[in-house]
Order: sequence, then C-alpha cells, then structure tokens
Amino acid sequence: MRIKALKRALPDAGFDAYLVTSVTSVYYFTGFLDIRDAPITLIVPVDQDPILYVSELSSVAARDEAKNCTVKLVKLGEQFPDKILKELTMLNVKRVGFEALLTHAFLKFTKALKKVSFEHNADLVWKFRKIKSDTEVAYIRRAAAMADVGVKTAREVLKPGIRECEVVAEAEYAMRSLGSEAFAFDTIVVSGSRSALPHGFCSTKKIQLGDLVIIDLGAVYRGYRSDTTRTIVVGKPSLRQSRIFNLVLTAQERAFKAIKAGVKAWQVDANARGIIKRGGYGKYFIHGLGHGVGLDIHEPPKLAPKSRDVLSKGNVITNEPGVYIPEFGGVRIEDTVLVHENRAERLTRSPHDLVKD
Amino acid sequence: MRIKALKRALPDAGFDAYLVTSVTSVYYFTGFLDIRDAPITLIVPVDQDPILYVSELSSVAARDEAKNCTVKLVKLGEQFPDKILKELTMLNVKRVGFEALLTHAFLKFTKALKKVSFEHNADLVWKFRKIKSDTEVAYIRRAAAMADVGVKTAREVLKPGIRECEVVAEAEYAMRSLGSEAFAFDTIVVSGSRSALPHGFCSTKKIQLGDLVIIDLGAVYRGYRSDTTRTIVVGKPSLRQSRIFNLVLTAQERAFKAIKAGVKAWQVDANARGIIKRGGYGKYFIHGLGHGVGLDIHEPPKLAPKSRDVLSKGNVITNEPGVYIPEFGGVRIEDTVLVHENRAERLTRSPHDLVKD
Repeated sequence: MRIKALKRALPDAGFDAYLVTSVTSVYYFTGFLDIRDAPITLIVPVDQDPILYVSELSSVAARDEAKNCTVKLVKLGEQFPDKILKELTMLNVKRVGFEALLTHAFLKFTKALKKVSFEHNADLVWKFRKIKSDTEVAYIRRAAAMADVGVKTAREVLKPGIRECEVVAEAEYAMRSLGSEAFAFDTIVVSGSRSALPHGFCSTKKIQLGDLVIIDLGAVYRGYRSDTTRTIVVGKPSLRQSRIFNLVLTAQERAFKAIKAGVKAWQVDANARGIIKRGGYGKYFIHGLGHGVGLDIHEPPKLAPKSRDVLSKGNVITNEPGVYIPEFGGVRIEDTVLVHENRAERLTRSPHDLVKD
Repeated sequence: MRIKALKRALPDAGFDAYLVTSVTSVYYFTGFLDIRDAPITLIVPVDQDPILYVSELSSVAARDEAKNCTVKLVKLGEQFPDKILKELTMLNVKRVGFEALLTHAFLKFTKALKKVSFEHNADLVWKFRKIKSDTEVAYIRRAAAMADVGVKTAREVLKPGIRECEVVAEAEYAMRSLGSEAFAFDTIVVSGSRSALPHGFCSTKKIQLGDLVIIDLGAVYRGYRSDTTRTIVVGKPSLRQSRIFNLVLTAQERAFKAIKAGVKAWQVDANARGIIKRGGYGKYFIHGLGHGVGLDIHEPPKLAPKSRDVLSKGNVITNEPGVYIPEFGGVRIEDTVLVHENRAERLTRSPHDLVKD
C-alpha cells in the first residue's frame, strides 16, 4: 500500500510526519483526485493514521474515494493553514517533511510551532511516483492511444486554409469522444514561423501550403497523462525543412536506443544533442530532451544537460528533441516512452512522417 | 503603464524591489504570456529598469512580446533561483516583496542574502489586477460569448444515451472553432447523482431521461477567461428538481441585484445563502457564492462567508449558488458578472432554463 510505504520511509528521512499538498500526490496515495489547484493536505504521521483535509466542496467525493485515511473538512469560512496547524499541534510531531508549501503557509507554521522543524523534501514522494506500476502504465498506455488518435485526426484535417484552432478543435474532439477526461496540457498547434515557438498557443492563423506545422497534444485517463508531438508539412517540404526534420528524427531515434534502466538522463540528452550539434543546429535545440510524465505533465526524471537523474525500470518519460529557427520555423518529434530493464518502449505510436501522405 | 504603477506603489508597501513570479501576472505587467507553470520571474526594482528572467525555451517569444523590461535568459542547465539570487545581489536591494514563492526558493534567498528581508505581499499585484480595464473587459466579454456558444451547443446535443464526455467534446469543439485559445478550466459535465459533485470530471456515463445535468465551462481569449454553469434536465423535471432549481435561480437573481461597487462581498454571499437557507437547503450550499475571474480562473475578490473583500467598479466575478444533495444530484447556476458603479452586468448570457426546450 502506497501510503504505508511512505510512512515506512519517514524515519530514514528524519521525519515523524509528512505533508502531501499537491492534488496529484494526494490522488497517488489515497485514490481521491480533487480539481487542479484545489487546497488539500494529507498529513501522514509516522505512528498514527493519515488524515486528509479537503474543503467542504470536495467532501462527498473525498469521503467516497479516499482510502486509508480519515477525511476531515475545512468548512466554508475556515482557513486551510489554521486547520493544519491545529492538527499538527495535536499530533505533537517535531520533524515535519513537506512536498511543496507556499512561503506564507511555511512562515505561519514555523512561527506558531517554534519547536517543530519543517523541511522541504519532495524526493520522498517522487521516489515512489516516478516508478510506475503495471496499472499506472496501463492507464498511460490508454491515454497514449487516445493521443495517437488525436494526432491521426489532426493529420487528416490538415490542409491549406484551415486555421490552427480548427485543427486543435478536431484533435481534441476525437480524444474527448474516446473518453479523455481532460487534456494533458493546453493543446499546441503552431504553423509557419509560429512553429519556431516551442510552446506557442494555437491561433486563428490559417495554415499555408509549405508551412511546418507542430502538433503537440496529450490525453488523460484516470488522471494519467500522455504527451506526443508530430511535425508535418502541408504540401511538399523544402530541402531545408526535410534536412532539419531528418536530423531531429535521427536524434530522437538515437536517444530512444539509449534509453534503458541504469542510464544517466544527461547522457541520453547528450546522445540526441550531439547529433543535432554535428548537424549544425545545436544552438537551436533550446530545451531538455524530455521529462517524466504521469499524473503531472512535467515530472521527474528530467532528461537535460546537467540532470542528476538516472533512469529506472518503470519510468515513463518523453523523448522530444526539437530545433527552432526564428523566422523560419521549428521541428519537434516527441513520444511518451516506457523505460524497461534493457530497452525502451514507445507508448505513443503514430507515424513520424513529415509529409501528409 | 502597469509596470510603472507597480513601481510607484513599492515605497508605500515598504519595498525597494518586487518579484512577480506567476505567469499570468508577468503577462499582466509585460504583455508576454508563457505557458502554465513555466518558471518565470519579473524583478521590479524601485529605481532601475525591470528585468524579466525566462527560460531559454521561451526566449524568442519573450523578446518579441515583453514590453518595458529587459529580457534575460536562464539557459539550459542553469538554475532559476541561482540567477535571480545573483541579480538581486547585483541590484543591492534590501527589502524585497514577492507575490508567491515556493518555500525552497524562499529559503535559498534568505540564506544567501542574510541582510535582505523578503516579504509575501500578493495584494500589491491584486490591487491592480482585480480592477479590469475596458480592454480587459472586452476580452472577457469575448471569452464569455464563446462560453455561451459552448453552453448552447451542449444544450442542443443533450439527449438520453449521450455520454458526458461526448457533450464535453461538442461544447469544446464549438468554443475552439470560435478561436478559444484554451479552456478556462477542465470542462465539467456531470449527470444524475454525479451532479452532486461540485467539481466532478466528465465520465463515459450515459445521460438518462430525468437526469440533472450540470454543464460548467469557460473559454479563453487573449489569456482572459470566462466561467458559466447551467443545470439542465433531460426530459420532464421532477417536482423536487424544479423546486431546488427555482430556489437556486432565485438566490442567483437576488445576489445579482445586490452586486455593485462598494458592497461587501460576504453580504452578497449572504443574500444568496439566506434564500437557500430559508428554502431548507442551506447545508447543501457547500461553497462560496463566487470568485474573481480574469487571467486566472480563481482570483480575488472572493464572495464567501467571512470574506473581507469589498466589490469595486471593474471587478469581474462569478455569481454561482449551488445545492448538492448526495445520491439525489445537484443544481448550480453561474454567470460571469461585471461590477459597475451602481449595478451589475451579466457577461455570460445564455438562458438559465432548466428544461431543454
């Protein structure tokens, strides 16, 4: 049981209680998923039962769904930090670890409980969350299959004159119809020179013949996310477009082959980056190669220069090299990938092709 | 100019510099909108030019779009807090206010700069952001009109046998096709007993004849959000459904009439709450009456018991009483509303009707 495993890990980390405060981690440990950014706190004392504080708004759902903890309410008009403070006082704990606290809550706690030490330690949670169980992988696999349909749909509707937002509308409609509970992030479709913006939003710009079009999307199943990107040219690609595309694809394939348990994350990044550098486009690869994906869209481990992470069996990560040339446009190819003992497995599986049929 | 106004407000607040760290506030002050949760920091010193730190990933967009500040990069492999720390040292500031900092950044700053005081003061930003300019209102108005079309579409497609997620797909498709850049939040469609969950996600549940269906959605235009909810019964409503619906509608109308500049936010909440209490459903109205809406979906002012906020001309808020009865179902009616000097104006304008035609 996840919450018991967390409890068992507390003494070694030097804590007699731990505060889980992100909606996704609370879901991971209790099975109750609140809405994004909801105030929520799971107090896990080392030698007593865990207590989950939710707002009154979420009480019915939390009482139905939260397992292995006592659900308590922060009622309308009551303040969240005040309730947590009172509970910590009653629990008489001395060394409290936390996942993420905003400074004003931290200051309130340390001021009121002068004899209690509070220490940031998010790794304690990520140590568990970054290794996906078979069930979690099955959920991500399903979210990945939905994303593949989103990409397929976008590819089908792409034509000169269609607006970026219309392409998004079609892709999202397809994913929703399959039961995607939400979107993994705000869907990106950027075309022409706008494709040089790695994280641009879609606009009402009409897609033109010869435009590079970047489609970056993800679905959600049981809270688990997928993340995939394809770059497509409407019409016949130019020589330069094809050259950059092939370079990015080679880099992605090279990285894919390097991914397995025990490999250093920076090394995988360096494999892809080396190819793009040797191709002459190193300075245009302006982000890390990838990131973990799960209940959050950006999780550990981080695949980037100077990352200290080492890949493990059960990690689910993105593999997404990109080249972005201002004025000209960009190419990014991204898959969600599962790390096995001796190899990697692509969970998003739509074709990489640059040209639409 | 917004950033100048912020500068001018610093001395009275006791600061010689201020850190703006949310993506939406940075957009408000500079015109550059990064993706959700991107690491970003705008340093506003009282007597020098503002400096915006963005990750390399966002450099092209930031340099194009950010006004009235110098854009500097946190390069791949560099750490955000380290760069901010170095800049604060060079600026030689002594009293730094901040909007929101995670504890580990705060601790890093206070440890390295022992002679500098850091103080949380988000009100400094909200004082500006909660009063919408005519341009901002025009953007929200446009996002509200898109949401109205979303609701209209959902109402049209509602029929026994359609799945909750399919209704979401249709409503979102309609909003996207109009150019909605994203969604204001994860669209909610919950039906039957699931409508008793104020913040449930949509599921693959099929909607049945006689189900209460809550549709809660919002669009985004130029970063500005709208928020509206309708409750619809498929088929003929029961007496109890109609009674609760009429109670909630009366409460919403009563609150609407109370909204104007100078009124206390808790008083508006109490107006609506009183009606629901007198109708016998007080204990089922388990959230505040409303919240500000703008670049964020939940902003000040807060309309709730014990809120200390006072409404001002230019506030844009939601008016959303609700009644949620476990097992039975729920009713919520919500509009995005603009506060004028002597009255309120609905920005979302789709019909409130319980019954589908």
